[in-house]
Amino acid sequence: MINKDIAVIMGSESDYSTMIYAANMLKVLEISYDMFIISAHRTPDRLFNFARSAQANGFKVVIAGAGGAAHLPGMVASLTYLPVIGVPIQSKQLNGLDSLLSIVQMPKGVPVATMSIGESGAYNAAIAAASILSISDNNIANKLKRWRDQQTIEVAEKPA
Amino acid sequence: MINKDIAVIMGSESDYSTMIYAANMLKVLEISYDMFIISAHRTPDRLFNFARSAQANGFKVVIAGAGGAAHLPGMVASLTYLPVIGVPIQSKQLNGLDSLLSIVQMPKGVPVATMSIGESGAYNAAIAAASILSISDNNIANKLKRWRDQQTIEVAEKPA
Amino acid sequence: MINKDIAVIMGSESDYSTMIYAANMLKVLEISYDMFIISAHRTPDRLFNFARSAQANGFKVVIAGAGGAAHLPGMVASLTYLPVIGVPIQSKQLNGLDSLLSIVQMPKGVPVATMSIGESGAYNAAIAAASILSISDNNIANKLKRWRDQQTIEVAEKPA
Amino acid sequence: MINKDIAVIMGSESDYSTMIYAANMLKVLEISYDMFIISAHRTPDRLFNFARSAQANGFKVVIAGAGGAAHLPGMVASLTYLPVIGVPIQSKQLNGLDSLLSIVQMPKGVPVATMSIGESGAYNAAIAAASILSISDNNIANKLKRWRDQQTIEVAEKPA
Amino acid sequence: MINKDIAVIMGSESDYSTMIYAANMLKVLEISYDMFIISAHRTPDRLFNFARSAQANGFKVVIAGAGGAAHLPGMVASLTYLPVIGVPIQSKQLNGLDSLLSIVQMPKGVPVATMSIGESGAYNAAIAAASILSISDNNIANKLKRWRDQQTIEVAEKPA
Amino acid sequence: MINKDIAVIMGSESDYSTMIYAANMLKVLEISYDMFIISAHRTPDRLFNFARSAQANGFKVVIAGAGGAAHLPGMVASLTYLPVIGVPIQSKQLNGLDSLLSIVQMPKGVPVATMSIGESGAYNAAIAAASILSISDNNIANKLKRWRDQQTIEVAEKPA
Amino acid sequence: MINKDIAVIMGSESDYSTMIYAANMLKVLEISYDMFIISAHRTPDRLFNFARSAQANGFKVVIAGAGGAAHLPGMVASLTYLPVIGVPIQSKQLNGLDSLLSIVQMPKGVPVATMSIGESGAYNAAIAAASILSISDNNIANKLKRWRDQQTIEVAEKPA
Amino acid sequence: MINKDIAVIMGSESDYSTMIYAANMLKVLEISYDMFIISAHRTPDRLFNFARSAQANGFKVVIAGAGGAAHLPGMVASLTYLPVIGVPIQSKQLNGLDSLLSIVQMPKGVPVATMSIGESGAYNAAIAAASILSISDNNIANKLKRWRDQQTIEVAEKPA
Repeated sequence: MINKDIAVIMGSESDYSTMIYAANMLKVLEISYDMFIISAHRTPDRLFNFARSAQANGFKVVIAGAGGAAHLPGMVASLTYLPVIGVPIQSKQLNGLDSLLSIVQMPKGVPVATMSIGESGAYNAAIAAASILSISDNNIANKLKRWRDQQTIEVAEKPA
Repeated sequence: MINKDIAVIMGSESDYSTMIYAANMLKVLEISYDMFIISAHRTPDRLFNFARSAQANGFKVVIAGAGGAAHLPGMVASLTYLPVIGVPIQSKQLNGLDSLLSIVQMPKGVPVATMSIGESGAYNAAIAAASILSISDNNIANKLKRWRDQQTIEVAEKPA
Repeated sequence: MINKDIAVIMGSESDYSTMIYAANMLKVLEISYDMFIISAHRTPDRLFNFARSAQANGFKVVIAGAGGAAHLPGMVASLTYLPVIGVPIQSKQLNGLDSLLSIVQMPKGVPVATMSIGESGAYNAAIAAASILSISDNNIANKLKRWRDQQTIEVAEKPA
Repeated sequence: MINKDIAVIMGSESDYSTMIYAANMLKVLEISYDMFIISAHRTPDRLFNFARSAQANGFKVVIAGAGGAAHLPGMVASLTYLPVIGVPIQSKQLNGLDSLLSIVQMPKGVPVATMSIGESGAYNAAIAAASILSISDNNIANKLKRWRDQQTIEVAEKPA
Repeated sequence: MINKDIAVIMGSESDYSTMIYAANMLKVLEISYDMFIISAHRTPDRLFNFARSAQANGFKVVIAGAGGAAHLPGMVASLTYLPVIGVPIQSKQLNGLDSLLSIVQMPKGVPVATMSIGESGAYNAAIAAASILSISDNNIANKLKRWRDQQTIEVAEKPA
Repeated sequence: MINKDIAVIMGSESDYSTMIYAANMLKVLEISYDMFIISAHRTPDRLFNFARSAQANGFKVVIAGAGGAAHLPGMVASLTYLPVIGVPIQSKQLNGLDSLLSIVQMPKGVPVATMSIGESGAYNAAIAAASILSISDNNIANKLKRWRDQQTIEVAEKPA
Repeated sequence: MINKDIAVIMGSESDYSTMIYAANMLKVLEISYDMFIISAHRTPDRLFNFARSAQANGFKVVIAGAGGAAHLPGMVASLTYLPVIGVPIQSKQLNGLDSLLSIVQMPKGVPVATMSIGESGAYNAAIAAASILSISDNNIANKLKRWRDQQTIEVAEKPA
Repeated sequence: MINKDIAVIMGSESDYSTMIYAANMLKVLEISYDMFIISAHRTPDRLFNFARSAQANGFKVVIAGAGGAAHLPGMVASLTYLPVIGVPIQSKQLNGLDSLLSIVQMPKGVPVATMSIGESGAYNAAIAAASILSISDNNIANKLKRWRDQQTIEVAEKPA
């Protein structure tokens, strides 16, 4: 039934306003995805079930956003062989520096491919996922190439 | 078989040189404990099994030390109703600031009682566990009281 | 006269808007508490009197919130054998990083069980206190279990 | 002539002692790689030539290590459509916090998949690259799976 | 055609509201300048073309503003022999600390003369450029001297 | 019996190697002092007794050194009307940044005059105390003046 | 002509909204003061003239507020034998962490007695100055004592 | 008598081991320089005299290294119209982060062109000074060009 390329997951409903940037970018690149709320701390069983079955369910890359202690990306990475891209959500007090360190400072053996803090990180997670899929999918590769070339063209020479 | 009050767990063998301070302090206070290596990232099943059965196995408090992304204390806390005390291990590059933020900045609903970074944090985790057990165990309460009173006496009035 | 399980104390009236999250959570879990303003710096005698008599007055756990130099939790911990849970209040300039370090970096011998910065920390302090009381109080243990299980159920599968 | 899966590049000869951890891990996983010194600042033409031809030269993923201002990973990412994995080298004064922020805080449109600071980051970069190649290469997928399963087995239950 | 003393460049249109402070100050000092948007990451060819021809096009100093990973000033410095003045743009999450470290922590051999974060840095970049040009241009030297002397006079003795 | 101008206190015996710099400088300036170990956390009664009687015992200024959570200077300041000078001891993991913030970020109403981290801070505490006493003691004023003038003379014109 | 006890100085007109807290507190304690704008960077001669003549002009303590690079307090301290109290003004980007470090990290020989960041620091500077003057002025000592005792009384027992 | 292009100054004799990197690089580029110890805090008159006469004495650029509160570069910049290049010396406790912020965060109107922390910053200060002099000195321009081109050539293609 589930047969999407990318799983976009987040630790809580409040992360949605950030992670929608990943989803929207995936739409632009016409990459299929599904989106779930999975709290590492409040729904650890859901975390285990999702991560352990993600590959069997056809997902190729997991994009995981979380803030503060931000265990979601790292725990998913420990439970699947799929590439996991982490998005540090901007936290209220420490502006996402806690999220960033909690996601990026993974120990030897279990990497999380970490993006920048906040919306731009979510946006870039989609592009990173596209570049990963592009290795074996010419269709996505072409779309990514066209999109990035378009980005280059759109940078004005001078400030308006 | 297992019937110890405290579980002292750590993310890797290299954390042992820090967590031994917790074990030694528990010995001083004559509190029973068992010690395990449980890597949140390399042995997630062991993590689940330990945390889900900790209460049934008779543990009353979990002391968990981890460094860097340091997901162990928080993930245990999400999988048990027992109090979890977190010890941020001093990390190589960021001196444990990453460990501290990854442990202390837990989201609403799943607390980790966080100690100071490094050896003093491990040492204090044992004392915090003792104070928790003291609520319902006069024997431990008396030992803790005597030990702390002794500490007070031992502070010299003047530097030697 | 006083016969409550938890003392919720704070350094100044302005901390109330944060610490009310602890009080409200204690109400949800039907744990009795009393609330006091105790300034470590402006009312040091009140601090001494409170901390030295807290155990005799029937309190089992102290939850202490403070911001900036944030000496309240640590000083209470030095004056009682009870477990002390510290809540770093978000400070104006440094966003609570100062409060966090001042509370968590306690020296060997006198731990403060530190929560995350701000409202979520106050909220979690109540849950941590509940988990501590649960060791010897089945009634609280059951309420905590039900509440945490309910939390798990309430996490939506997908963002709305 | 060049027909390796992974390019491991670094900003200076002094980064080699860190980046060798990536190379060694790639060897363990039997993934082909080539290694180059490319200074974003001292050899910008080499940077352009490498990055612009990396895909045509058969590379599928670029692993780039750099310290301090650490422009190498981001500039390669701007010049290729291939996935770029960044390794923040531990810097002398700021311990790699500068390297981390310079690599991870990429703007919208050009992601760098950032690893942890130092040796563990280099090591993990190889594993992340393996997980990326695994999407379309069952051989690598099997090797990665076996290696990670072996890692799990090797974690001792108790500290020695 | 182009024959201006200073090139004021910035990584994106959104940096204009900061970099306009440099332009306005150059106007006050009657120093000729041209202004360009050059994204190190989205328009790397434009970056190369600009930097490699800046000296031939008559520019004497480059003022480059960028935020976050902020590679623009350093990459221009690697591609020209002209003095490059870097302005760290205030970033959304980390307030420009990331921009500052990414710009100032350049490796041996390729300096960027770094200003303070944000508007005051842009403003000061113009003054620094003027002081540089003053070494061989008495006209600019006189204007700078008059302007700075005027600044001194304008500081009120007492707050109003 | 006690009739010294300055009390130099410290949180533990291990702070002595730093605070000796304050004592030695006071000797150079021929200012009388006494030195005590007073742990805010292990000997809170000693803290109260010392601070409450410091003025009656003839002390005019208190120099207090502490590390980590570093409550000693602030608690003394809350218990006496005397000026309190705080010296942040360099801590093991966070290099004294925790000590500094814990000492300097005092709330409205109870200041601690904070010095730089470590030995230079202890050294400067003595000089600050001398400048305070100089307001009403011409003898000390003259010694301080001579010492500082000598310092100026001793700065070599050129590196050797 | 000038015969005030305290000089309250600040680096720019924009610091006035912070430093007024020092002035108002001095008024409460009925301590005479004068207030000046002295920019270390834009009016260095005014800085020299003020600092070199401050003692002769009858000032007993200097309170100096500055933000960012914040050289004013330290430079005054280098030019006078009077006690100098530094107030780190909250800066726009780094919230006063830059101001704090620039003021407090003075080298051996020239201390600045540093207060907390922002308004509370300005407020406390006045109290610190009062405690210094109290050593030789019973009138001020009594006012300070009454004011501090009143502060203690005004702390409510319970949040409203 | 003095007729050198560059003044290399430093706050104390202990900074010499860092600033010698600037001097040695100036020698390589055959740029004349003189070297002085000028303590902003211990020798403020020397600071004033040097800075006020630097231009008249024939200096064209000032390179100033300082650590900790690091007022030297900014104060020189406030007293001369010459370009001032600042080198943050690595400090003992905060690794030069304090030095960096104290030097770079200059207010509007008085810039310091800031280099990276420590030896590489001193080294780069010489190169930045050369690039500044190159605007009006073809001889230096040619030497700088040759040296930088040589640097490019010397970067090995592969780690040894």
